[in-house]
Amino acid sequence: MAEKAMKNNLIFRPHFKTHQNRQVASWFRDLGIDKITVSSLKMAKYFMASGWDDITIAFPFDPNETSEIDKIASNISLQVLVSNMQHINHLSKLKNRVGVMIKIDVGYHRSGIWFEETERVKQIILEILKQPNLFFMGLLSHFGNSYEARNKEQITGTGKKSIHRLLMLKNKLSKDLGMVIYTSIGDTPTASVLDDFSGIDELRPGNFVFYDLMQLQIGSCYLQQISAVMRCAVVDKKPKEKQLIIHGGAVHFSKESFDYGGKKSHGKVVNTTSDSWKLSESYLINLSQEHGIVQCDEADYNLYEIGDYVDIIPVHSCLTANLMKNDFEFV
Amino acid sequence: MAEKAMKNNLIFRPHFKTHQNRQVASWFRDLGIDKITVSSLKMAKYFMASGWDDITIAFPFDPNETSEIDKIASNISLQVLVSNMQHINHLSKLKNRVGVMIKIDVGYHRSGIWFEETERVKQIILEILKQPNLFFMGLLSHFGNSYEARNKEQITGTGKKSIHRLLMLKNKLSKDLGMVIYTSIGDTPTASVLDDFSGIDELRPGNFVFYDLMQLQIGSCYLQQISAVMRCAVVDKKPKEKQLIIHGGAVHFSKESFDYGGKKSHGKVVNTTSDSWKLSESYLINLSQEHGIVQCDEADYNLYEIGDYVDIIPVHSCLTANLMKNDFEFV
Repeated sequence: MAEKAMKNNLIFRPHFKTHQNRQVASWFRDLGIDKITVSSLKMAKYFMASGWDDITIAFPFDPNETSEIDKIASNISLQVLVSNMQHINHLSKLKNRVGVMIKIDVGYHRSGIWFEETERVKQIILEILKQPNLFFMGLLSHFGNSYEARNKEQITGTGKKSIHRLLMLKNKLSKDLGMVIYTSIGDTPTASVLDDFSGIDELRPGNFVFYDLMQLQIGSCYLQQISAVMRCAVVDKKPKEKQLIIHGGAVHFSKESFDYGGKKSHGKVVNTTSDSWKLSESYLINLSQEHGIVQCDEADYNLYEIGDYVDIIPVHSCLTANLMKNDFEFV
Repeated sequence: MAEKAMKNNLIFRPHFKTHQNRQVASWFRDLGIDKITVSSLKMAKYFMASGWDDITIAFPFDPNETSEIDKIASNISLQVLVSNMQHINHLSKLKNRVGVMIKIDVGYHRSGIWFEETERVKQIILEILKQPNLFFMGLLSHFGNSYEARNKEQITGTGKKSIHRLLMLKNKLSKDLGMVIYTSIGDTPTASVLDDFSGIDELRPGNFVFYDLMQLQIGSCYLQQISAVMRCAVVDKKPKEKQLIIHGGAVHFSKESFDYGGKKSHGKVVNTTSDSWKLSESYLINLSQEHGIVQCDEADYNLYEIGDYVDIIPVHSCLTANLMKNDFEFV
């Protein structure tokens, strides 16, 4: 991903919300990466404490955090995200200089200003420029609707359409205001599949560091690119149902699920003992707080005994990693 | 709940997996409660460290934890759960005395031995009795299917049927083996709704300490019995959609959802400013990692401004509490 960003002349600002882990972070530093993205004040403080000094909090600014943001901004290069004039009113009270990005919605419909509301974005930019402590850093968008794709072509389609919309706004603003407008994008599917990022300045994917079952299913990655599994002990077996009872529940996987071929799954078993991972048809059919039930094919059922560990690719690695971030084991 | 247990001559062994918190635990101690249930070795160690010395780990025994279990058993009264002869083979290696309960399935179909498999249970009991370090503590069941009820009558029905099945097994074993067989049950719906627990010896509900939206919807509790909300900052508003964007996502609520009246909800807004909580029709319609979207009714939309906090009753308080256990605020 770092290479891809370099080839495309993109600033690479990986999202660290996926791993939230100092050691994984250090691998990025080894590649010369010094700018990062996080999604909360708490994460910003965590990574600042281990020496990261250029951080974007890619989550709409919460006025309750004004004084803490001010404190962090006195130590490092900090960028925050706004989508409302009220955010600027609060940020204008900061004593320290902070970078401000405007969140743009180009089709995900979660948060941000709709890309056609040029006038509204322009007013916010002008207000940012008026404030001596605020530095306008550009437009930021998250193409979260790329997760609705079910193959590479659909990801490409969503990615291209989303970039087109963002650039339409960028070009209008650039012309109207007579200034360079920097743009940042970052969903993992688009970042993984697209090759042409013309007009975009910054790439901030996060999930790609682990990938997961959802990314595999929608075509963002190959099985061999997945790098994280949840390792669960088999604690009982049900011969009639061909099920394994594992210590792996909602407190390990979150309650995320994915529907593939009409089967609701919370994760899929992978054989990690070989050099090349082998995906099985056995899957996590049910989760309660600590229990998980793996529905096996015949071969897997006989493969695992009570006390053995079974490796499961989670549907959404970010949520599993959030729950397990203090218990990573590196192999 | 403690009173109810006392009135019914039940040993009260509350499940601490719901809160996983020392301070909440201390409220139980203030009531004279000294026996507790947890669902993992990790929780057992946490509560042992704060002075709890009679703990049941109500999760099938994991052979990988044998030596750690042995260590804990040298310090406190520890009970573990088995559902397979292999568990006994591993436990027989312990140096310290440990209590053993057998997990019985009476209809939930998650884990445990089916209540009609009398012979299988008997063989396990006989094997436990043979081992000098193992003390047979009785039968334990979790009526998790009570969560499928949609009103009090259905909870009562499931509860009564489940108790009946458990007692059938208990009575057969008691007659065949000529010994007293102790029984433990504990799902919150049954514990909340039933009044007659004849034949049962121990009650170990957990969720009731907070209750939640699911318990409210299925009839386990009244609104005014709910004692935990997730308090989330409003970070933006969408006037056209009448939506609030909040800092409250899957890392706060897990991805649990509940379908009521065809609407998939991850939580419901409650007005906690009055003496008596007032439930609103506004609900958490969508969750990503850190973002939540609240779909408002008109009144609520106008009530909350950016920077205000909105209180949300989670669908499943155990999962929210697991994520937030280090950030509880007591009011």
